[in-house]
Amino acid sequence: MIIIENQQANWPVQSQTLTNIVGIELPIIQAPMAGGPTTPELVAAVSNAGGLGSIGAGYMPAEQLQEAITAVEAQTEYSYGVNLFIPNPADNRPPSPAVLSKLATYAAELGIDPPTLADKPPSNFEAQFEVVIENEIPVFSFTFGIPEPRYIEALKAREIIIVGTATCLREALALQEAGCDAVVAQGSEAGGHRGGFPPDAPNTMIGSLTLIPLLADRLKIPVIASGGIMDGRGILAALILGAAGVQLGTAFLNCNEAGVHPAWREALQSSDPADTDLITTFSGKPARGIVNRFSRDMAPFAGEVGTYPTQNQLTRGIRAAAKAQDKPDLMSLWAGQGLGLSRSMSAAQLMQKLTSEYAEIVSAMRWLAP
Amino acid sequence: MIIIENQQANWPVQSQTLTNIVGIELPIIQAPMAGGPTTPELVAAVSNAGGLGSIGAGYMPAEQLQEAITAVEAQTEYSYGVNLFIPNPADNRPPSPAVLSKLATYAAELGIDPPTLADKPPSNFEAQFEVVIENEIPVFSFTFGIPEPRYIEALKAREIIIVGTATCLREALALQEAGCDAVVAQGSEAGGHRGGFPPDAPNTMIGSLTLIPLLADRLKIPVIASGGIMDGRGILAALILGAAGVQLGTAFLNCNEAGVHPAWREALQSSDPADTDLITTFSGKPARGIVNRFSRDMAPFAGEVGTYPTQNQLTRGIRAAAKAQDKPDLMSLWAGQGLGLSRSMSAAQLMQKLTSEYAEIVSAMRWLAP
Repeated sequence: MIIIENQQANWPVQSQTLTNIVGIELPIIQAPMAGGPTTPELVAAVSNAGGLGSIGAGYMPAEQLQEAITAVEAQTEYSYGVNLFIPNPADNRPPSPAVLSKLATYAAELGIDPPTLADKPPSNFEAQFEVVIENEIPVFSFTFGIPEPRYIEALKAREIIIVGTATCLREALALQEAGCDAVVAQGSEAGGHRGGFPPDAPNTMIGSLTLIPLLADRLKIPVIASGGIMDGRGILAALILGAAGVQLGTAFLNCNEAGVHPAWREALQSSDPADTDLITTFSGKPARGIVNRFSRDMAPFAGEVGTYPTQNQLTRGIRAAAKAQDKPDLMSLWAGQGLGLSRSMSAAQLMQKLTSEYAEIVSAMRWLAP
Repeated sequence: MIIIENQQANWPVQSQTLTNIVGIELPIIQAPMAGGPTTPELVAAVSNAGGLGSIGAGYMPAEQLQEAITAVEAQTEYSYGVNLFIPNPADNRPPSPAVLSKLATYAAELGIDPPTLADKPPSNFEAQFEVVIENEIPVFSFTFGIPEPRYIEALKAREIIIVGTATCLREALALQEAGCDAVVAQGSEAGGHRGGFPPDAPNTMIGSLTLIPLLADRLKIPVIASGGIMDGRGILAALILGAAGVQLGTAFLNCNEAGVHPAWREALQSSDPADTDLITTFSGKPARGIVNRFSRDMAPFAGEVGTYPTQNQLTRGIRAAAKAQDKPDLMSLWAGQGLGLSRSMSAAQLMQKLTSEYAEIVSAMRWLAP
């Protein structure tokens, strides 16, 4: 690792490779958190501060994604990203009848209709991808798989930068092979959905401290560390381990601009990493969140819930009603293990804080230079 | 973090606190790996190189521990540690009959007698502790709990330094309160047994990247990072995150002096973090190791194995015979997620390598200082 100068701080050379590719000033990416947090205001604020804001568009209908892109572009002239979920047609196991009746009890508690399998999950990807292409967005990132070659070709034809998500070496190598420009290394600390893809490696809860150097040593493309990075210490540690840049989700959840329910914000600050767990019962895919009544009561049903996106569709109404009624015990409180270190401020202030903390440690390390 | 000079490299100030307390030159501890790896030769070599060698004595009868101490002291005049397992009398659930018959099939395959519950696990702790006290060893570390106050008092009366093991904040605070001089923060990446203690926090698989700053921010005593640290990059990352020192286990497993079966060494170098998992079926307590036939075939029985130390005693003969017969598929191949980065060399060479790698990155970071 060799350190280079840039205008705000000293970054290692591999960071410059990433920032050049992605078209940003600072090697800091705001994670694309689907389901509300990544408002156009948050995305634009991060990009305006020199990082890469990202729209978590996995759940968005195409029209909503178009609106988000338009709103982001109205607020920033800098690079930004859009993240989509790669569909997996094999994921179609329905829940057991016991799961459906358990979910009905939550619906009754919230005064809404019980969820039914007749309410099919939307099949968004084709239309979402069309919006990505038509808008010639700067950066396209994705989780849960690898897009088929025709998608990759369409992206490359428009010079859209392609960023995949890996939870282990096997996935990272496959993403590099498929033509990605960079790979997000999602450590086990990360909040929200595990971004890996089928066929799942058996044990992919790999901590960032080992996942980052493993991928950095083995890949030719830049590695973006994600999972557990909350402040300047975390950023510098990740870069020292070989990352070219960092992606922070939980750190941005408490920013003023994030679309996050007040009870969720409160839970972030009052909780401990040991209060989080992998929860499969909200969406059908494992995701790290703060344990609550829903996750505890549903845990015995973990083996019989529907797969994604079926289960996600079934719990959608419950989660929406829980938000509307301020009932955090039935909300999905996604959070990474660094949650206690999230800070309540504007995104611009957080970006400033992250870079100044980083620069401070770097200069402390240089302080006694001969 | 402020960097200080010492003879071999620059270490942050918090490291000096730890090295002063523990009586070592470098803030690098060789993890106490019970069951064979920590031979007196390995322990003494690490201490002679300026780190802290540690005898993993959890399974040792008192006489064997005395022999190990005598052998270590014959080979080094520097500080070293002894690690014991804190017994938990509540751990006494026997295995199901199905587990016993499954284990009998392995015994038959290996040509040994089937394990029986009549073969009680030894109750070593009192006698082991007596050896620790009588020898007035420099550093006493422990896992799986907190010693009762009378033990802590006996250690303090002899000025033996006390180091506990925590997998979450709650455990770390309890260890500090009990009078520990330092705490090992065991991240989820770590190989071998999870060192936490009952009542277990529900979700204590916390990655080092978040566990280290959490404990460093909240404890008054020095935090020793462990789990996933394999080289100079990992050491510097851990110190930047706030650790006062580091404890490496898997990194030392491939050292010439380690008491490690050749097949185990080979598995370390040919495996990937995704090839490891938490395995409860060998000992009754969760421990990270390389998945093999035993761990895969026994996985369906995970809920019905005996608790530690009962299960450990039941599989002892199988593991010993598997070693003697070169059958790694029935051995416990403990390893952390950094396993692919373990290096085959002498412990003195590894200590030299770790410090020179560390110093190289620190000076690269200082290279462009104004």
